[in-house]
Formats: sequence, C-alpha cells, structure tokens
Amino acid sequence: MAVGEAVFPQMPVIEGLRLGTTSAGIKKPGRRDLVVIEVPEGASVAGTFTLNAFCAAPVQVAKRHLAARCEKGLAPRYFVINTGNANAGTGALGLRDATSSCDELARLTGVEGEAVLPFSTGVIGEPLPMERLLGALPQALEALSENGWDAAAEGILTTDTRPKGATRTITIDGETVTIAGISKGSGMIQPNMATMLGFVATDAAISQARLESLLQDGVGRSFNCITVDSDTSTNDACMLVATGRGPRVESSADLEAFRVALDEVLVELAQAIIRDGEGATKFVTLDVEEATSRREALDVAFTVAHSPLVKTALYASDANWGRILAAVGRAPVENFDVERIVIDLGDVRLVEAGGRAAGYTEEAGSDVMAREDIRIRIRLGRGEASATVWTSDLSHDYVSINADYRS
Amino acid sequence: MAVGEAVFPQMPVIEGLRLGTTSAGIKKPGRRDLVVIEVPEGASVAGTFTLNAFCAAPVQVAKRHLAARCEKGLAPRYFVINTGNANAGTGALGLRDATSSCDELARLTGVEGEAVLPFSTGVIGEPLPMERLLGALPQALEALSENGWDAAAEGILTTDTRPKGATRTITIDGETVTIAGISKGSGMIQPNMATMLGFVATDAAISQARLESLLQDGVGRSFNCITVDSDTSTNDACMLVATGRGPRVESSADLEAFRVALDEVLVELAQAIIRDGEGATKFVTLDVEEATSRREALDVAFTVAHSPLVKTALYASDANWGRILAAVGRAPVENFDVERIVIDLGDVRLVEAGGRAAGYTEEAGSDVMAREDIRIRIRLGRGEASATVWTSDLSHDYVSINADYRS
Repeated sequence: MAVGEAVFPQMPVIEGLRLGTTSAGIKKPGRRDLVVIEVPEGASVAGTFTLNAFCAAPVQVAKRHLAARCEKGLAPRYFVINTGNANAGTGALGLRDATSSCDELARLTGVEGEAVLPFSTGVIGEPLPMERLLGALPQALEALSENGWDAAAEGILTTDTRPKGATRTITIDGETVTIAGISKGSGMIQPNMATMLGFVATDAAISQARLESLLQDGVGRSFNCITVDSDTSTNDACMLVATGRGPRVESSADLEAFRVALDEVLVELAQAIIRDGEGATKFVTLDVEEATSRREALDVAFTVAHSPLVKTALYASDANWGRILAAVGRAPVENFDVERIVIDLGDVRLVEAGGRAAGYTEEAGSDVMAREDIRIRIRLGRGEASATVWTSDLSHDYVSINADYRS
Repeated sequence: MAVGEAVFPQMPVIEGLRLGTTSAGIKKPGRRDLVVIEVPEGASVAGTFTLNAFCAAPVQVAKRHLAARCEKGLAPRYFVINTGNANAGTGALGLRDATSSCDELARLTGVEGEAVLPFSTGVIGEPLPMERLLGALPQALEALSENGWDAAAEGILTTDTRPKGATRTITIDGETVTIAGISKGSGMIQPNMATMLGFVATDAAISQARLESLLQDGVGRSFNCITVDSDTSTNDACMLVATGRGPRVESSADLEAFRVALDEVLVELAQAIIRDGEGATKFVTLDVEEATSRREALDVAFTVAHSPLVKTALYASDANWGRILAAVGRAPVENFDVERIVIDLGDVRLVEAGGRAAGYTEEAGSDVMAREDIRIRIRLGRGEASATVWTSDLSHDYVSINADYRS
C-alpha cells in the first residue's frame, strides 16, 4: 500500500560520483541488495546518524571511519550498503563483520579501510552472511556508473513498495549546480538525526564544515520531521556528498540558494518515505504554529502524529476531531490555555474557544477526511515558533505487514 | 476481543454506600448508561483526574466541587456518571450541562449542588442530551442499593467487553475492613493521574488527607502504569470513598495494611482494563529494573509499551526481539550503556552484551511469545530504581474498532 502514484524522477549525473548495484542473495536470491557508491577524491562528505542507543554495528563503524578521515582532511571514498540484514544487535561479531566489509572493499579498490563507510538495513539481530556479501563486491564494483542512481534506489529498499529519488538544479555564476538523492524507509520510521537511508550528492564544491551544517539543518526540517510509527531505527543514516567537480558554493547568496534547493530535495525524499509508509493510505501534514519554541511545536505535532486513535480515524476517513483535540491536550506542554487553541482540518475550522467551532458541520469535516492528502493546522496562541511534521495513517495493512512478516 | 476469561467478583456491601443504575438512552436506548453513587454523610472522598489540557467539562466541575466541599470540611454526597457521551470539547455549553446535572440531582436529593460530582465517558464533542439525562435521574435514585455494584459496573462501560471489579478485606483490631471498586476503560488509555473511570470505596474511617495520599500513591502504581494506545483520555477520573462506618484506620501498621489491600484493588482494576484493551489478545507485563530513577524506568517501559512494532510482534506471537531492543535504544535516557542492558522474555534471555544472548534460540523465544500472558524484564545496569507497566498488543481488531466506529 502507498499513497497515490509516484514517478521516480529522471536522475542526473553528479560528475565524479558512481553507483554500482548487484544481487548478493543476502536475504533471498535474485533481488538487488548490495550497492557500492564511489566518491571521487577531493570531495566533501557530511553524515548524520541515528540517536538510537542500540545503534547498529555499521553505524558505529561509519561514524568512526568518517571522523578518522575528517581528522586527516580527507573524505571517504566508498559507501557499501546492503539490504536484507541490519547487522544490528549483533554485538562484537557485528562490528567485526562491518569492518571486514570495509577492509575487503578497500583491498579491491586500493584505498585504506577507513575510507569505506558501511550501511545496512533489514532484519535486526541476525549475523551478516559475510561470504555472500564479500563475494558479490567485485560485481558491484564492475557495475559502477554515473548513471547508477535508478538501480541503487532499488537496491536499498526493504518493505518499501517503490524507489524514492529527488533532484534539483540551481545556477551559480552561469554554471549549473545539481543535487540528487535517494532514500529508503517505510516502517520503524521516526528518524532522529537522519533516516535510514538517505544518500544525497551534488557536484558543487563546498567545504566539509559547511556541508555538515547544511545537512544538519536540512535534516532537522525534513527527515527528522516525519513519523510512520514512532519507532526510531537502529540503522538510520543520511549522507551528503559534494564532489567538487562543479562550481564552488561560498558566498552567502550562493549558500542560501543551495540550502533552499538541498532542503527541497531532503523534504521530497522524506515525504516519499511517508507516502510509502507501511500500510499508508493517507499523507498527513501537521502544521503547528504560535508555539513558544520549535521544540514545543514539534512535541505537539508528534503527539498528534503518533496517536493511534487519530491515525485510525484518518484511515477510516472519519472526521473524529475529538481525537485530535484529545491528543493536543495530552501533549507535553506546560500551562496550556485551551481557550486559545485553534484547529483547522484543511479549510474547515474544527476547534476554537475550548470546543467545537461554531460553524463546523460533520459534512464539511468528512469531505476533507476523504482526501488522500490531508492538512491539520494547530495554532496554540502562545508564541511565534512553528513546525511541520508529516505522517501516515494506521491501517489494517500496517498490522498485517508487521504481524505477518519478520522485518 | 479480550485476553482470557474474567470472572466478575462477588461484590461486598460497603456500609453506607449505595449505587443506582438505569437506562437514560444517552447514545442508544435500552443500555445501562446512567449511574448515581450515594456517599453517606461523614465520609471522606479523594479523587484524581486527567492531566489532559482539554479536560472535559465534568472533570472541571468535579474538581471544583470537590475542592469547594473539602474547604468546608465536607465530602461530596453524590456522583452522577453517564456513558455514551464524554461532554468533552463542548466549551461553555458543556460546563453549563455538567453543572445542571449536579443541580438537578441536588434538587431531587435535598443537598447543595456542590455536593454532586459529575463524570462522563463516551464520544467527544457532542452536546449531552440533557432532557434524557435529567429525566432519568429519578429512576437512578429509585434504584439506589448497597448491592448496586454489579449494575453500576455495567452502567459505566463504553467499548469495554466486560465489567471490571475488585475487592479485598483486611482485619483491624478484630474488625473487618472492606475495599471494593469498579473501573472502565478499553481505548484512549494511558492514564495520567487516573483512568477513566475508577470508583473505589471502603467502610474504613480515614481522614481526607490520608485518603488523598493513599489514592495518589496507589494510582501511581496502578492506573498510571497501564497503556493500551498511549492516548490519555480527556475524562479520566478515579474516586476513592471511605464511608467511615467501619473501623478507623490511623496507626502506621493499620495504614500500611490498608495501603497494601488498596493497591491490590487498584492494580487488579487497572490490569482488568488492559486485559479488556481494544483488540487485545495479549497481556504484557514490562518490568524495568536497575534504572537511576523511577521516572527513567517508566520512560523505558512506556517507550517499549507504545512501540507499534513491538505490539504487532506480540500480536503475531513473533519473538522479534530486535524490535524490543530498538525500542529500548530509543528511550529518552542519557548516556545509555547498551553493553550493560539485559533483556529477558519470560525465562528466556534475549539480549546481553549489546546483542543477542549467547544461549538464545528462536524456538525458546517463540514458546514464550505464544502465551497469552507475557513478561518482559529489562535491566539497565544503571541504578536501583524500577517500574512495572502493563500493556496489550496491537491487533487487526484494534484498527477495526477504532476505524469502523465513532467512539
């Protein structure tokens, strides 16, 4: 199940960046499950990773290798990504396996082990099938191509029903800068610092420090603002590569233009995860405004977005606005004045002055709830901060997907 | 759906306390939906109420009336409880309706309006059908009886599939003290200060101040430790009445014996709500130990209890322990050392040293998961505080109940 149709975009070449995808038979034979991404020398790379305390072995190794390379003023040269197995909850063996994957790819490509970052997604707690994974690395390298985005977008999926990609271009001094990215994720989705998995690249030349801050800010407004089921994955990671083959982005005006385009790519990739959320039939935008802080606005938005009662009402297209009101009311906010809270469903006023809005009719509410794309706007009347969060509904298919399969 | 069989206990008489139940036709005709509880003069009464900011009109009025009576050194004389309509999100009209219910019952019984506390449960946002409610009050008063517990336990239900009652006796100076209570609740259940609704009474003589502290402590270990769906109701309330017709409970030893018996009643009523949770097929006990504080232990327990992925795995009897590990890992705890965390499923060790326990087998895990009553024990290796939380699973029936009906 997924919300609406989605067209995978025509992906551009990011000069210097190559992607290779193959089938290693990690979980089942025949499906694309191993991706290698080659980053050219001289690039900058920034990454964000899950805050789950049980973060997976590849996350631990990727963070360590990225930091080690940064200390030397170098960027990583390769990402190796497998699906079908998360290599999480695997203790010391998992760390050895993640490191071995890096070392073997390093040996095949003539770089140092620390220049390779590993990423895994899939079932938690099973050891990686190392023989099959290592054995398939040469095929993945053979497949490396600047036109490899489409196959890579397929190769990182798990319970997703469709690949997710986004791209933008901006012009700097008459030259084109291109940004392109892919993501995956469908369940265990409430990213915290990043989502599992996003890979975004640009041909721009941007310093590592600036890239890092652009990614942190962008992820804070995109991947960290989505939730399917409130479950933060052990393997979340989002990487941003700037190959430096294109124009240098340095002036404030250029950085701002780049930031806007990057944010658009990140938001589009994050929203694609929600539209393809496990069992999703609705795509819901929660705008919380007039909060005293962005944290408060996010707290209210996520409380509503996580409410199973709101999510089942959305699934049923039932304008059960009392559940939205009850969820807002239990959000962790001090001294809430419910008299000042205004809630709109699309263009229909639901709640004001502590109760149902005067002009509200069931018919008007039901009209909005029947749509596939629904916007809920909550104004708190407390301040000037705001936040937007995207979520999906809770359907029978969500239960089936997670009760019937070992994911 | 509900977990296992439940036998409604033989309820005792609490001398001086009478309960009357009738059908007012609040939502549909013919079902018991209006309950009046008469508290004798000279009793003590303590209450706890929801912390939801959008707390319902009856909650606001009940708190105000209880406080006003306490200031005068008096206890309330009547509770009036309707099901089928929560009188929540109803603004100024809702407050007028709740007050009118109290005033009419006061008129019929010759007490002051403030001596009546109103309670409502059911759909949010609809005005109370006042004519039917007020018109049925005389029948409820006619039905008043010291043996009215069974009908009252039926009369407060909404989506519950069965009535919930619990009782205990202790002996003080050769005299018997009796405690009895009823509760309702099945969905929108993560009580915060109390659950919708619990009514507990004893014939003991206990001061209001002591009763208050006994109820707060007891609710903190019972109703505030359960969750079906993380949604805190707008109407939660739990009342404790001491009629004072029996022995006086004053010495530390007597208070301790009373506290133990009261906690047992509260825990049994709270657990009954989980066993009858919407769509529940499993009853799950989460023991979190070795935390630095009770708050931390509760945070970890509720994070696991709210995880849709853990709940669907429980529904599927799937020993998908990676989901438990991922939920523990995202709990809001600073500086988690995953190496020290030990997780047991029943008598089977799942997780130790940062990964799957050495002796774990899928077969052993599946054996425990197939049970109806499941215990998950999580030791954090950080301190000496602990907490126990009870929850249910997430089934197709939960989605059906909440997607198909306006509740």
